[in-house]
Amino acid sequence: MGGTGYTGVELMRLLVRHPGVQLSVITSRSEAGKPVAELFPNLRGSVDLDFSQPDVDVYRDCDLVFFATPNTTAMSQAEALLGEGIRVIDLAADFRLRDIPTWEQWYGATHACPALVEDAVYGLPELNRDAIRQARLVANPGCYPTAVILALLPLLSRQLIEPASIVADCKSGTSGAGRKAAVGTAFCEVTESVKAYAVDGHRHLPEIREVLRGVDPAADLVFTPHLMPMVRGIHATVYADARDDGAGVQAAFEDYYRDEPFVDVMPPGSHPETRSVRGANTCRVAVHYLPAAGKYVVLSVEDNLVKGAAGQAVQNMNLMFGLDETLGLEAPGMMP
Amino acid sequence: MGGTGYTGVELMRLLVRHPGVQLSVITSRSEAGKPVAELFPNLRGSVDLDFSQPDVDVYRDCDLVFFATPNTTAMSQAEALLGEGIRVIDLAADFRLRDIPTWEQWYGATHACPALVEDAVYGLPELNRDAIRQARLVANPGCYPTAVILALLPLLSRQLIEPASIVADCKSGTSGAGRKAAVGTAFCEVTESVKAYAVDGHRHLPEIREVLRGVDPAADLVFTPHLMPMVRGIHATVYADARDDGAGVQAAFEDYYRDEPFVDVMPPGSHPETRSVRGANTCRVAVHYLPAAGKYVVLSVEDNLVKGAAGQAVQNMNLMFGLDETLGLEAPGMMP
Amino acid sequence: MGGTGYTGVELMRLLVRHPGVQLSVITSRSEAGKPVAELFPNLRGSVDLDFSQPDVDVYRDCDLVFFATPNTTAMSQAEALLGEGIRVIDLAADFRLRDIPTWEQWYGATHACPALVEDAVYGLPELNRDAIRQARLVANPGCYPTAVILALLPLLSRQLIEPASIVADCKSGTSGAGRKAAVGTAFCEVTESVKAYAVDGHRHLPEIREVLRGVDPAADLVFTPHLMPMVRGIHATVYADARDDGAGVQAAFEDYYRDEPFVDVMPPGSHPETRSVRGANTCRVAVHYLPAAGKYVVLSVEDNLVKGAAGQAVQNMNLMFGLDETLGLEAPGMMP
Amino acid sequence: MGGTGYTGVELMRLLVRHPGVQLSVITSRSEAGKPVAELFPNLRGSVDLDFSQPDVDVYRDCDLVFFATPNTTAMSQAEALLGEGIRVIDLAADFRLRDIPTWEQWYGATHACPALVEDAVYGLPELNRDAIRQARLVANPGCYPTAVILALLPLLSRQLIEPASIVADCKSGTSGAGRKAAVGTAFCEVTESVKAYAVDGHRHLPEIREVLRGVDPAADLVFTPHLMPMVRGIHATVYADARDDGAGVQAAFEDYYRDEPFVDVMPPGSHPETRSVRGANTCRVAVHYLPAAGKYVVLSVEDNLVKGAAGQAVQNMNLMFGLDETLGLEAPGMMP
Repeated sequence: MGGTGYTGVELMRLLVRHPGVQLSVITSRSEAGKPVAELFPNLRGSVDLDFSQPDVDVYRDCDLVFFATPNTTAMSQAEALLGEGIRVIDLAADFRLRDIPTWEQWYGATHACPALVEDAVYGLPELNRDAIRQARLVANPGCYPTAVILALLPLLSRQLIEPASIVADCKSGTSGAGRKAAVGTAFCEVTESVKAYAVDGHRHLPEIREVLRGVDPAADLVFTPHLMPMVRGIHATVYADARDDGAGVQAAFEDYYRDEPFVDVMPPGSHPETRSVRGANTCRVAVHYLPAAGKYVVLSVEDNLVKGAAGQAVQNMNLMFGLDETLGLEAPGMMP
Repeated sequence: MGGTGYTGVELMRLLVRHPGVQLSVITSRSEAGKPVAELFPNLRGSVDLDFSQPDVDVYRDCDLVFFATPNTTAMSQAEALLGEGIRVIDLAADFRLRDIPTWEQWYGATHACPALVEDAVYGLPELNRDAIRQARLVANPGCYPTAVILALLPLLSRQLIEPASIVADCKSGTSGAGRKAAVGTAFCEVTESVKAYAVDGHRHLPEIREVLRGVDPAADLVFTPHLMPMVRGIHATVYADARDDGAGVQAAFEDYYRDEPFVDVMPPGSHPETRSVRGANTCRVAVHYLPAAGKYVVLSVEDNLVKGAAGQAVQNMNLMFGLDETLGLEAPGMMP
Repeated sequence: MGGTGYTGVELMRLLVRHPGVQLSVITSRSEAGKPVAELFPNLRGSVDLDFSQPDVDVYRDCDLVFFATPNTTAMSQAEALLGEGIRVIDLAADFRLRDIPTWEQWYGATHACPALVEDAVYGLPELNRDAIRQARLVANPGCYPTAVILALLPLLSRQLIEPASIVADCKSGTSGAGRKAAVGTAFCEVTESVKAYAVDGHRHLPEIREVLRGVDPAADLVFTPHLMPMVRGIHATVYADARDDGAGVQAAFEDYYRDEPFVDVMPPGSHPETRSVRGANTCRVAVHYLPAAGKYVVLSVEDNLVKGAAGQAVQNMNLMFGLDETLGLEAPGMMP
Repeated sequence: MGGTGYTGVELMRLLVRHPGVQLSVITSRSEAGKPVAELFPNLRGSVDLDFSQPDVDVYRDCDLVFFATPNTTAMSQAEALLGEGIRVIDLAADFRLRDIPTWEQWYGATHACPALVEDAVYGLPELNRDAIRQARLVANPGCYPTAVILALLPLLSRQLIEPASIVADCKSGTSGAGRKAAVGTAFCEVTESVKAYAVDGHRHLPEIREVLRGVDPAADLVFTPHLMPMVRGIHATVYADARDDGAGVQAAFEDYYRDEPFVDVMPPGSHPETRSVRGANTCRVAVHYLPAAGKYVVLSVEDNLVKGAAGQAVQNMNLMFGLDETLGLEAPGMMP
């Protein structure tokens, strides 16, 4: 549902090659009737569907509906779908926060179905794999939260840092702003420039905070997003005060993520590049200990449209339907 | 053989997901002993090999060797490999020209094994599919020639144009210049700028000319390459004087390429974008007729590293080994 | 008038440092009341004006009004200004074509003051310097026409080419599309891609044709614009059939442009880069003769916002007001 | 001295328009004898000099020599020049650190003239204006240090922050890496990607630390540089623990920089963009107070080649020679 944005087209790119999926309906209010491949010519020959009107009827035979819609769309339609026995993955933010007042404050709307929020599972497999397997409704994490949380899980869960000392300085490609007509994301406004935005508060801050507090109730952070002159990729540079001398941190990361198919712990001293994960569902992390400052610096990179959105949604789908978790997600990054 | 360039890493990206291939040896004189994934971190988790020294011995158990080496390497080693019963695809230029004096003039070297040149098949499946199936040695076409020739085959073969009136104005991404330490291809020299180069003569000119003359002995062209501030993609804009009134040209293109899995004829009036084929083995073409000028303009786009190099090599491999021609090449382009 | 586009901000950048100019009014309907430097922070400290409503009254004390507005604005207001003794330079297209029916066909509107069209001088100093000095109303040339016409003037005027054999393959930075909210010019749509557009007809075609026919009535051309993943710069690659053997062409160019302050003829064999003129009012040209094809290829680069728009407007202003033609335009290009 | 790098060409771009300067000698060992404008075609028509061999003799009639050379060149030649009464500005790092052992540790060399280090003035006019006026030898600051120190001076000097709590997360354009043949700065390696580098220690860390400790001896910081896919610009995002409630911080910045021609304090809530200072000698800063975290975040942008290198050198020259400090530096940034 909602196939005209960057998350939508990326989801289609992944699903058309997925051996366990049949793509049966793509909806769009604004483009209904138009061939999908006319809007996204990369899909010519791969997707033969037209955009449909988003009526519940068109989903009747589906096992799963992905919402790649703007915020506040999924919350008004999820209930009806679930009632039909259709499972739901929302790639927007409607079900990401358990705390309804916080959600309503940051998203500037009244939540349309708070009852479902408790049901929803936050779809970060590295944290909630078992719950996702059982879920009817998955809240796919935000792009920044995925990169930041994966950078912090080993440190926080093993109490290697002061939990309230976190600074997450994040750099995102412009596709994170979505596919839309806006001066601010025009080529001539974005290229050859860098800027911070929303320094005084970004919607992903409460999301990260809530998830981290599930690991350590004392966790808190400063979060600063920056817009980069590139399409894909998030680079999170995460600082925290160390409680120890850094001696065991590399092993802690390697242990924590040993069995994770999509988190790659780099060797000591590494500086991962966002391009190394372009198009891939991998999050690469490298941890540095700075002895003079007594701080950890974790570098975490992902493709915001894949592990930060569509790829993670497919990973969640695989888990929900008992498929191999990596199915359809095995392709390495494209470099250069 | 020769896995440290952009053609090499792209070939590995495609081969690691190919169900009929086992990647057994990657060679590099300069990087021998180093893990491949250290040089190309996108392959971490996909390629566990180290670079080897390029000795014939290391290939003994291979069915096929790809040369992704500089020009003049393959011609000195192909004979030994073929003698061992190992088939060869050369992604460089050593076997592309049948006319040895022309080759020697443009490549500034004496050809090391002219005898093999006659044996070699020019690996453009749309032109030479049957010969490729039988070939022991395939000369994989150049990136520009692939885009230009595919733009012209329907026009030339159906005699719709004056064969000596062709102008091919071509725009290429910087990956076409290879992975190397050079001021001229540095980020700060290439980005935010466009320039022509080799206007007075480029090595791909004799290659295109020889292939076109196989279709119409009177064919000739002007060829002007330009360097673009992007990584991947070639856009060929090809002009020629029409012999007719343009009425049947769309049908001519559609007929000509009806059964081709990797040439996509766009609807009338289209303007294909290079990004629509990023990472894909597709060449998209659109033909325009300009009545006032009596000219055809064909727009032809490809990913120079895929249909213009590594992808076409895999397509050739599939044909040589009796595999489905599209195996391992089904992924749509990545957009955005 | 109309200071919110890229042409407007570039004009301000040049005018604030121009020793003979006092910038007194900047208008914008949509931004009236807002400080100019809020929209364009590069001008903080240089421009202290707010945007005004575009009433004739606000211009009363001006000697000159620049129209950096969309097409069809200047034609409805120029008469009133001229009536007040205020001279006018229109950076849009309202007065570029002498042939009214052609204008009306390509711009899809009825011309509001055809009487003024005869009065207007086409503001290409290299062609019309004396007329510009006397002009009350100057039609500033289009960006593509400037690059293409300057590439051709020596060849056409000295009858070195077949006048109807011209092909102009042009590559433009995205700023040529203007500052606007549109999906098609979004960063993620433009970067890392190249495409042709308007192959079947672009408004600059009749403009170039009319000007060239003023030099040689038999002149005609094919014109193909392409969108480049860069902000500034036009690269015109212009092909034409030679009538001679190329022996005197370098001297012809050097002679023709010997006294021109803003046309730089490069040495034989050169390939000018668009970045070499970034921010400068220079057009660099290089002419190549291809003996096998009997064709000339002229490479012509300019900054579309400077020599292709705002800089040329300042050059015209200098001429109209008896100032040194290069005043305020002496800065070299910015590289890298 | 040393005119073949990006700092050198930028210095020439500024000096050719400077009314108080005559550019008399440009040296380069590798390019001696070649016209400067052949290497840098943007300077065609502006610089008519050839590169000279860097002998002391060629400088005899100069009042000032700029070293735009690699580190360790200036320290071996400055003494001879000063002995001739020629003043020196070193744009490299030889005289930036007063502490010789620290310099030797970070630059891996024995300092060739420690005696001169005491004489040298650190050329940050906002800190050392009076000393610069009297200086014979100026150590022009590093690009990162300029952006970081200007972000911190008001906070540190007014004791608004915990001095050892600073984190400076910095993003730099690729021109900071210099003009050189290297795979790591090739277009295809840098574009569409972001990475941190030298997380465990960068040469600008001791430089920043030494300068900050001149303001507050307890100052210390973590400094993390990142490479951005753009040519020009540094964005420093600087975090520090607040000692107060943020109420007076905007006024503190505005007071501190009230008379500074090249530091622009943005209004509260601003997010400066690096492109707003492209080509300009301005550093734009914006300060944010985060009440929940009790931290300040300062956003500081500059053009690394101008305020971070060549422009600041010209500013220093103006001070040293009693010229108006802004002479030759008045041009606003180029946007877009």
